[in-house]
Amino acid sequence: MEASIMDGHGRRCGAVSGLTTVKNPVSLARLVMDRSPHSYLAFDGAEEFAREQGVEVVDNSYFITEENMSMLKRAKEANSIMYDYRVPAPGVDSASAGLEGAKVENGLLMNGLRISVYAPETVGCVVVDSNGWCAAATSTGGLMNKMSGRIGDSPLIGSGTYACGDCAVSCTGEGEAIIRSTLARDVAALVEYKGLSLQEAVDYAIKERLDEGMAGLIAVSRNGEVAYGFNTIGMFRGCATEDGFMEVSIW
Amino acid sequence: MEASIMDGHGRRCGAVSGLTTVKNPVSLARLVMDRSPHSYLAFDGAEEFAREQGVEVVDNSYFITEENMSMLKRAKEANSIMYDYRVPAPGVDSASAGLEGAKVENGLLMNGLRISVYAPETVGCVVVDSNGWCAAATSTGGLMNKMSGRIGDSPLIGSGTYACGDCAVSCTGEGEAIIRSTLARDVAALVEYKGLSLQEAVDYAIKERLDEGMAGLIAVSRNGEVAYGFNTIGMFRGCATEDGFMEVSIW
Repeated sequence: MEASIMDGHGRRCGAVSGLTTVKNPVSLARLVMDRSPHSYLAFDGAEEFAREQGVEVVDNSYFITEENMSMLKRAKEANSIMYDYRVPAPGVDSASAGLEGAKVENGLLMNGLRISVYAPETVGCVVVDSNGWCAAATSTGGLMNKMSGRIGDSPLIGSGTYACGDCAVSCTGEGEAIIRSTLARDVAALVEYKGLSLQEAVDYAIKERLDEGMAGLIAVSRNGEVAYGFNTIGMFRGCATEDGFMEVSIW
Repeated sequence: MEASIMDGHGRRCGAVSGLTTVKNPVSLARLVMDRSPHSYLAFDGAEEFAREQGVEVVDNSYFITEENMSMLKRAKEANSIMYDYRVPAPGVDSASAGLEGAKVENGLLMNGLRISVYAPETVGCVVVDSNGWCAAATSTGGLMNKMSGRIGDSPLIGSGTYACGDCAVSCTGEGEAIIRSTLARDVAALVEYKGLSLQEAVDYAIKERLDEGMAGLIAVSRNGEVAYGFNTIGMFRGCATEDGFMEVSIW
């Protein structure tokens, strides 16, 4: 598991990768930001820091579910790096959506490994407070059947997570595409340097930067504008404001 | 050790972190780019990939020098995260520059740990060919006395290394500041989105983005413009062109 957090007010940040026992990786990312001299700790060193800080740790078996074991087995049999399978392609029954359904519409061939259905189990959050201060955080288990030691976009400041004085952005999707697009920073850079509105920046980033990849993102601006975009079939998302407005969407 | 490489033509990239036996980390970063389905491999998984790919590995003792052991001892005694000490502050004798000399002028207090002299042992390279295609690569041993598992800016695409159709950038310095500044991407974004010249972009990034950090960077544009900038005392650098021009500088 890996995660990152960024406080746009002062551009402070923290990130962690390669966790196997920390129950809430994003909370550890925050401790890296607040209580370490570094911005990013990974693998054994991150686990060691977790124990020093006294965060809740669990046996690794806590994270292993029957459902994911079954998906991992299928991914290994197919020699496929799989994303989560829970957003079925339209017209495809959800039970078979994993390998059969979306393969045709959304399959990508990367170095001989097929990427199937796209809808990762990443959780991101962007917020803005009454001062107009923005923050973003992203947490993930990464790709199904990823190589040992693989780091994705979620812990990388500027790729999966970014916040500054203008806005906050959190991404989800094909990490390798998000990294080469520096997707979260690009959304904010389009606002900061090109003067686009937040939604214009999101649309441009999704359309122009993800030429060979699939991803989605959520964003808020310092003025409270909420924006999102994705080039996948769907992206689970929700929005809440202090006056009680709440909305959730998939497509 | 950690490293990254980015080919601006098509924005392909590869990165590695947490290496202890790979003789040339940047060559492994290139193999991650060319021969793995991922962009970034770290720690045990990166070492495993190195062995699969058959790159040259050496015993970890190969990297341990008497000079660095001595500096590490001093850093531990001072409870300090130290950068390399080989650029003395003007007027300070080089033997004592490590802890005494630059402490006053360049010391930073980060969470109670003092960062002393600043001039890291990072090596970066940016190139442009006759097609105007740019590429960048950065390799480092990281900070002296860093925490176990600490990842710096060098392997992070958009932070220590970035290349696109416009330019290529490689950074060196206080990794935590470079990460929160997404420094390499910001130089390129200022060219791409704000229309600045390469040197203007470098100057803006060094002046405006590194408000609380010390770093330097080298850059080339697709038109062959060469630019650099730093807010430290010095930065070792060199430039060579195909017509035989060669230049090296420190201050």
